Amino acid sequence: MADERIRVTYRLTPGAGESPEHKARDIALEQTVELPEGCYPRAIADRIVGRVERLEPTNRRRWEAVISYDPEIVSGELLSLVNLLFGNTSMKAGVLVTDLALPDAVVARFRGPAFGIEGLRERCGTRDRPLVCAAVKPVGLSAAELAERCSRFAEAGIDLIKDDHSLANQPSAPFAERVRRCQEAVDHANARTGARTRYFPNLLGPPDALAAQCDMARAAGCAGVVLAPLLVGLDIVQWLTRERNMAVLAHPALSGALLGPRHGIRPAVLYGDIFRLSGADGVIYPNAGGRFPFSAKACRAINARLRGPLGEVRPAFPIAGGGVDAEKVPYWIERYGADTIFLIGSSFYRQPDLVGAVRRVMEAVELTALRTR
Amino acid sequence: MADERIRVTYRLTPGAGESPEHKARDIALEQTVELPEGCYPRAIADRIVGRVERLEPTNRRRWEAVISYDPEIVSGELLSLVNLLFGNTSMKAGVLVTDLALPDAVVARFRGPAFGIEGLRERCGTRDRPLVCAAVKPVGLSAAELAERCSRFAEAGIDLIKDDHSLANQPSAPFAERVRRCQEAVDHANARTGARTRYFPNLLGPPDALAAQCDMARAAGCAGVVLAPLLVGLDIVQWLTRERNMAVLAHPALSGALLGPRHGIRPAVLYGDIFRLSGADGVIYPNAGGRFPFSAKACRAINARLRGPLGEVRPAFPIAGGGVDAEKVPYWIERYGADTIFLIGSSFYRQPDLVGAVRRVMEAVELTALRTR
Repeated sequence: MADERIRVTYRLTPGAGESPEHKARDIALEQTVELPEGCYPRAIADRIVGRVERLEPTNRRRWEAVISYDPEIVSGELLSLVNLLFGNTSMKAGVLVTDLALPDAVVARFRGPAFGIEGLRERCGTRDRPLVCAAVKPVGLSAAELAERCSRFAEAGIDLIKDDHSLANQPSAPFAERVRRCQEAVDHANARTGARTRYFPNLLGPPDALAAQCDMARAAGCAGVVLAPLLVGLDIVQWLTRERNMAVLAHPALSGALLGPRHGIRPAVLYGDIFRLSGADGVIYPNAGGRFPFSAKACRAINARLRGPLGEVRPAFPIAGGGVDAEKVPYWIERYGADTIFLIGSSFYRQPDLVGAVRRVMEAVELTALRTR
Repeated sequence: MADERIRVTYRLTPGAGESPEHKARDIALEQTVELPEGCYPRAIADRIVGRVERLEPTNRRRWEAVISYDPEIVSGELLSLVNLLFGNTSMKAGVLVTDLALPDAVVARFRGPAFGIEGLRERCGTRDRPLVCAAVKPVGLSAAELAERCSRFAEAGIDLIKDDHSLANQPSAPFAERVRRCQEAVDHANARTGARTRYFPNLLGPPDALAAQCDMARAAGCAGVVLAPLLVGLDIVQWLTRERNMAVLAHPALSGALLGPRHGIRPAVLYGDIFRLSGADGVIYPNAGGRFPFSAKACRAINARLRGPLGEVRPAFPIAGGGVDAEKVPYWIERYGADTIFLIGSSFYRQPDLVGAVRRVMEAVELTALRTR
């Protein structure tokens, strides 16, 4: 039977003197009417106020609550969904959004990724195996120096090169010059090797700047761009890229603020549902064992959520980054499977022979993918 | 002497086995080059990598660090500044941004509020006293029902009426109809009473929807709008409103995620610097003693920061909300002073006589303002 309400699961950590019943009811009111009991008409109480469907202790200090909401509150708007999930609640404490179930009719109003896993594979000309992505950096280098790095990555036959998300429009490497030079470097290498390396520049700024940057990237021949949704705006992706036919890799900058262990949104919901619904074709997240404290379990949940069924919404590519060790890529392929992009940054830059290091990883990926198929 | 570098102060809570020196250095690298020591050219090390200027214990488990950065990294871009402050660091733990000092040359590249305190006062026709703002709600009511509420607030001579930030484009009260009816209701009341109540609708959606909504609001006669920067995008305000000559009240939805007590950005920096630099003329924050756990000290710091000197950037109005009790407005005026807007929501809706309740607050504001001048 179709469930026609939006269902959000929370892990509640009530404060001193706060009852779990009160905490759950408070969320149901705060996220809808923003009024105390009795200060709204009866029809609103029945229709709009969230319903606490379930409330159970999971241990002595934590409770699991399921609250359901009328889909009218969201009405197919991504930002209304995010606001419903954690808008005002973000300013409270001890509320972790652990799961989200959307009715089919709500999902049907989101278009999601324009390319997704299939489309990104087509753009890179790869079937069946994981993709490897390098980051061109650091900020402060000139456009020519960054392009020279792109040239070496492409020479080695890597699938994707993305700008570091700190690269904006700094005087050391202004956007227009950087994108032109980097894409040219990649084009030349592709022409020499016959490979299909793709370069994705990072866009940053207000909407008019983003639109101008996206046009420049397209004119330069780029197949897609990098956007950090929490910086530029959570509902920018489709507006910016759909008519320009550009793929999008979402970068997690600033999103860590939403991922508190006791107060926030679980990474699988934020990256796996929200970023995917926003239209990102691939979603970068900090992999376990890297520079950020993400668990392997959380990462597997992100992967599953990005790839899993979600109405007609295309699956998006999980992009494991944040300090992936080039030597451990086979290890991660065995755990994450072929529909994964591995973003390798400093692990390449540590090598004196960058081209050789990339080639070794590309060979290891081919071999591991064959072995684990 | 002018300090020509950006200086960020952090409170660090190192994890088990993590040295404060390592933690500070890690931030200096992560927020700039995103590479480990030695993986970048010497010129980048000198110029771009953050410099740990100071590192001192504040108690057994906490350290205060000051790290300075080359202004080139920001280059006058708000999103680069936010990214520098907390982009990748957001995904780590135990890093609280407690202060930010920008060189004059960096501040000079931000225009900030178009109206600010002075301009909002002019639009409302009030000098010298605090302003009072009501919230029209809840979601689920029809446009006619919401307009009827606006009518009563305006009848009572309130200064401002803002949409609840949950009001988007729901079928129960579609944006165009809601804004037209609410503004008409306010216009009629103003014509009867001679008051100058202003209605600010809430805008939500991707940039094209925001632009269309802003145009509709302007055509209806609204003097400004409400935007939640963390939902719509931190760098949307000026792009959207400057040429449309609309004032902006910033709503804090989702921003609570950034305000963790041990990991995040202090409210005075987020609301007082970032929201103000973004161009918000007034900034809504959850006041102490309301529904959200903000301290009076934090609120006074937000007020000071929104109003204090910041190059040529206009002061913005602090808007104390989130459960302000109508009866306690005089108490808060004595503490916060005249350059404050008090946003009163449920405290009005609790009263059987809404018009009478608003009139009593307006009289109390006049009297307290006279007494404390």
